[in-house]
Amino acid sequence: MEPGDTARPGPWRAVRALPPRLLLLPLLPLLLGRGLRAGAAASSAGAAAEDSSAMEELATEKEAEESHRQDSVSLLTFILLLTLTILTIWLFKHRRVRFLHETGLAMIYGLIVGVILRYGTPATSGRDKSLSCTQEDRAFSTLLVNVSGKFFEYTLKGEISPGKVNSVEQNDMLRKVTFDPEVFFNILLPPIIFHAGYSLKKRHFFRNLGSILAYAFLGTAVSCFIIGNLMYGVVKLMKIVGQLSDKFYYTDCLFFGAIISATDPVTVLAIFNELHADVDLYALLFGESVLNDAVAIVLSSSIVAYQPAGLNTHAFDAAAFFKSVGIFLGIFSGSFTMGAVTGVVTALVTKFTKLHCFPLLETALFFLMSWSTFLLAEACGFTGVVAVLFCGITQAHYTYNNLSVESRSRTKQLFEVLHFLAENFIFSYMGLALFTFQKHVFSPVFIIGAFVAIFLGRAAHIYPLSFFLNLGRRHKIGWNFQHMMMFSGLRGAMAFALAIRDTASYARQMMFTTTLLIVFFTVWIIGGGTTPMLSWLNIRVGVDPDQDPPPNNDSFQVLQGDGPDSVGGNRTKQESAWIFRLWYSFDHNYLKPTLTHSGPPLTTTLPAWCGLLARCLTSPQVYDNQEPLREEDSDFILTEGDLTLTYGDSTVTANGSSGSHTASTSLEGGRRTKSSSEEVLERDLGMGDQKVSSRGTPLVFPLQENA
Amino acid sequence: MEPGDTARPGPWRAVRALPPRLLLLPLLPLLLGRGLRAGAAASSAGAAAEDSSAMEELATEKEAEESHRQDSVSLLTFILLLTLTILTIWLFKHRRVRFLHETGLAMIYGLIVGVILRYGTPATSGRDKSLSCTQEDRAFSTLLVNVSGKFFEYTLKGEISPGKVNSVEQNDMLRKVTFDPEVFFNILLPPIIFHAGYSLKKRHFFRNLGSILAYAFLGTAVSCFIIGNLMYGVVKLMKIVGQLSDKFYYTDCLFFGAIISATDPVTVLAIFNELHADVDLYALLFGESVLNDAVAIVLSSSIVAYQPAGLNTHAFDAAAFFKSVGIFLGIFSGSFTMGAVTGVVTALVTKFTKLHCFPLLETALFFLMSWSTFLLAEACGFTGVVAVLFCGITQAHYTYNNLSVESRSRTKQLFEVLHFLAENFIFSYMGLALFTFQKHVFSPVFIIGAFVAIFLGRAAHIYPLSFFLNLGRRHKIGWNFQHMMMFSGLRGAMAFALAIRDTASYARQMMFTTTLLIVFFTVWIIGGGTTPMLSWLNIRVGVDPDQDPPPNNDSFQVLQGDGPDSVGGNRTKQESAWIFRLWYSFDHNYLKPTLTHSGPPLTTTLPAWCGLLARCLTSPQVYDNQEPLREEDSDFILTEGDLTLTYGDSTVTANGSSGSHTASTSLEGGRRTKSSSEEVLERDLGMGDQKVSSRGTPLVFPLQENA
Repeated sequence: MEPGDTARPGPWRAVRALPPRLLLLPLLPLLLGRGLRAGAAASSAGAAAEDSSAMEELATEKEAEESHRQDSVSLLTFILLLTLTILTIWLFKHRRVRFLHETGLAMIYGLIVGVILRYGTPATSGRDKSLSCTQEDRAFSTLLVNVSGKFFEYTLKGEISPGKVNSVEQNDMLRKVTFDPEVFFNILLPPIIFHAGYSLKKRHFFRNLGSILAYAFLGTAVSCFIIGNLMYGVVKLMKIVGQLSDKFYYTDCLFFGAIISATDPVTVLAIFNELHADVDLYALLFGESVLNDAVAIVLSSSIVAYQPAGLNTHAFDAAAFFKSVGIFLGIFSGSFTMGAVTGVVTALVTKFTKLHCFPLLETALFFLMSWSTFLLAEACGFTGVVAVLFCGITQAHYTYNNLSVESRSRTKQLFEVLHFLAENFIFSYMGLALFTFQKHVFSPVFIIGAFVAIFLGRAAHIYPLSFFLNLGRRHKIGWNFQHMMMFSGLRGAMAFALAIRDTASYARQMMFTTTLLIVFFTVWIIGGGTTPMLSWLNIRVGVDPDQDPPPNNDSFQVLQGDGPDSVGGNRTKQESAWIFRLWYSFDHNYLKPTLTHSGPPLTTTLPAWCGLLARCLTSPQVYDNQEPLREEDSDFILTEGDLTLTYGDSTVTANGSSGSHTASTSLEGGRRTKSSSEEVLERDLGMGDQKVSSRGTPLVFPLQENA
Repeated sequence: MEPGDTARPGPWRAVRALPPRLLLLPLLPLLLGRGLRAGAAASSAGAAAEDSSAMEELATEKEAEESHRQDSVSLLTFILLLTLTILTIWLFKHRRVRFLHETGLAMIYGLIVGVILRYGTPATSGRDKSLSCTQEDRAFSTLLVNVSGKFFEYTLKGEISPGKVNSVEQNDMLRKVTFDPEVFFNILLPPIIFHAGYSLKKRHFFRNLGSILAYAFLGTAVSCFIIGNLMYGVVKLMKIVGQLSDKFYYTDCLFFGAIISATDPVTVLAIFNELHADVDLYALLFGESVLNDAVAIVLSSSIVAYQPAGLNTHAFDAAAFFKSVGIFLGIFSGSFTMGAVTGVVTALVTKFTKLHCFPLLETALFFLMSWSTFLLAEACGFTGVVAVLFCGITQAHYTYNNLSVESRSRTKQLFEVLHFLAENFIFSYMGLALFTFQKHVFSPVFIIGAFVAIFLGRAAHIYPLSFFLNLGRRHKIGWNFQHMMMFSGLRGAMAFALAIRDTASYARQMMFTTTLLIVFFTVWIIGGGTTPMLSWLNIRVGVDPDQDPPPNNDSFQVLQGDGPDSVGGNRTKQESAWIFRLWYSFDHNYLKPTLTHSGPPLTTTLPAWCGLLARCLTSPQVYDNQEPLREEDSDFILTEGDLTLTYGDSTVTANGSSGSHTASTSLEGGRRTKSSSEEVLERDLGMGDQKVSSRGTPLVFPLQENA
């Protein structure tokens, strides 16, 4: 902050401005050579042409050129891998092979290339020169180096553990194919996560929101805690047996629990999608996996922030624990707010401009706004990935309705392609990393322990939670659903990205290796076993995921053990708790009309004194779209009966239209409408008797009945 | 190469592997903080928790956090800029404002933000610490620094000119918004250039290929040479007047000529597109600008490679000159081949797999293959941007035909969005750079000289070339077309990217500043003047660019001074020289059937002894599509009459179908078919008399006649 300081004449100077770890460049490390070559050559031709420096430059130039070629070759390797994967996926899809998913395939190809790179390429260690220099007390993010009167700027790439210093230059190619871990977190994950949010099947998601939130928050926390404790036991055991060669603290174990609790059932969901398996199970699995990624990220940073006072104790400290919890809540809610706010802003912009006449502009705006969420969250110290998830959900819920038809498909397709490429890149990188990563610590005891722990952690997460959820749910989560959820505890991109983020210490390296093996195992074995498991557990397939099952062979009824002609068919609207129903009506009456062109006009829902505001915010289209509700609105779990509870004076209209909705049941799914009084009565009666009768009832599935 | 070397125990060690200039991160420099924060905290929690190092880490962590926030804020600035630009563009389009193009707008917004950043933010110079160290004789790409027993890896970011060392940390924000120049070249230009190639209107491009190639190659070389020499005069003058404070060589002047010869009439073309101006003029302008970008890149690197023997002389050296020419040809043809090869491979893959059933896979493959062109060219030492251009043209010509309908729109839209974002980013960055770039050298004499030189260079490029081209063209390039081409010599993204690539020396800094001003001036003034100019020059507007003008008010005939009912209507097929016609028939008979599902079956075009091969390569669809030719084929300039010249035995069929083509003239455009004998006769007669009669004929345009 003192300007006088800047004039200090030392040959080595440290500048604060630049971030300490410059990336080995995301997907595009290519960037280097050609320009440099031309640039260096240019300066040698154009500048003062000092003979001695020209020779140096020539050497540097050649080096740069060589390095740039290697960069390009390493990226080409990945492109080749992805291309191969794509072609093989096509072949598999063409032949309807389902035992291996594209991500599993990408890993296999990565593994093969990794073996080739590891054992097939010569260990070319680079020319090595030493610079002697006095030691300093800390590392700077940027160095200015005075070399024969010329100043060069260096940026800190990261710390290298002392034992690895000599092996750094072992094999150029292996180094080249090793990306900076932050690439995964900041470039590859955001499109994957955004796509997850944006492609969420809202209707089924919101119908099961309570359960999904419970699985994601409570479940992940339970799983993290149980795995962490089990692993601490394993580590203690290892210490006794003498298998542990370095420190491994309790917080490390908890951290492992957090990163390995991020499930990613991409394989299972792909098969569900393909076979059109039960929509509610799909929603539960998908919703849980999407949200628990966010929870796992925030959880892991909270555990990292858990630093007991005194620094050298790793015992439990209540203050630090509550600080961690506070950090968790702060980061999570902050990121959530960021994502929601940018989504809402985008919705408002797309609503009040006629941007939809120019789909290119609209798509570009959508892309930029979604990306700015990430930056905004990062700039405010929150988690960009989490913010992007909620931005995606908000965009899908509001902005999507305002987009032109072309932009809808454009944005979907754009993020679909980005998601596809990023996901397969991560998985092929995982395959590669098994052989090319230089800091593996294979510990058989730890690995076996981890497999047992994640199995137990998943079980302790699914079964008890499902039991408690079933107490409150009309539409029970059946045993077969629970088994399927237990089975679908795959680990994927998020666990990997969290594990590779920091591999400096011995404990972290062991975790990384273990995580990698867990991902391999779960993706290959569970991915291959999904189809047999589905039929073994009698899970309904062949359902159109965009629609509810037709009411006459409704899975809810079957789950509850009732006949198809019983009165249980319209329990759907009762599923969500009052807090969610409150939210729904608020959303439907105020948010949707404000942010989109659909929903009831604000002039009818807002109190009279807001008349002017309401007229300004209500778009003319709303009056046209008012009744019947637009297709986007049908994603709501709300029936018109519920609406009557909130704005009573328009009851008649809402009820009047409900008749026509009942007629189109096959499209609107299992929602049938009742008069509001009947409904209130039903709710007041509670769900007690239904619950009791359904527990333990043998589950019979329509699929089986038909077969 | 000596493994023993690696064990040297000096605290500072240089590793060769990493490229010397790590990028300040393309579009995503965000990447840094959060992870680091977590990582650093993690290691302090998990690792040995040495109290002293923990304090250091905390400091580094805070620094990293702060820096990361600034990164995010600077990127947010750009996103805000682009968002503003998009919204204003929409407003302009909505109100049909044409005097300011989106790129000009992006520059204005950039300029405003630049002024704010420059004069509105405090010059916060960072804390500065010096490291004392012995000097070394050259810079290394990677440094290993031993700081209190810990090793840190640093990568070279670039050289800093000695005068700027103290100002490096002047203003963090200004530094943050300054991207590595290679970002432009390697991340932002490729999508722009690929999109240019991919969206080429093939029919009009190929019809004018000869002229386009002449303008692009000869014209750019002439322009470069003339501007270079004029500027050398200006520089000499400046030396006499005492305005020159550092060295400025002849090669520098030539280099300036090369970079400023890259025209980018984006504004003009946008207005042409909107007003549906004359398709041939559009093709000439667009084709020239696309190809001369490629020429300018290769030309500038050839000039840079022009290094006369002895190094300290900058006089003319024949050997070095021919070496430069050789390099030009080598790089150009190499890049061309790379692009064409990957395009052909993609076409083959998409043809022989049934990938079109899965548009997502197809799009991903297309994207990856197109991107691999860039990497492949860079890995082989060619120019990625040039390769990408020819890859785009090849993809549009062959692969596009094999894609599914969905993939066609997906790929087009994907590259459209990328192109849009990249282009507007570059232009807003240009606006910003005028105030935030720290090394400007404003020299009024040089700037005025440059404006005069580019005007004269453009004139010396357009008018003489047009004269010579008109000698060989049936369809003359009229005076108004020539004036319009002269007028449309805008400079844009490519000139900027080439100029910012190296700003190390005084001469280069002066060039950069001048280029920036030329881009501003041409984009704003010429962009605003396009519509008046069009009407002043009587250029036909309102033509559907996808079709030829209807034959009865054919612009060709008007150009030649004939009446609409004269025999001049079918000159089109005569326009291209025999070499192109040879290529066309080769392409149509062999390449198209091999690479796509269209064209005549190879079994009819290949000699009998290739029968097996022909049957393998011919897809079953070809037999269905054989006659009439598919719509994609109609992009060909070839009429069926021409085909009869190459494969005589199928004359009857071709002629038989030509009748139906004549019937659909409005779609097929100005091509009418004659019997082959008549055509050969016409060609043999040459074009002499037509030429003479057309020269000096007053040009009357249908537009005017109708008006």
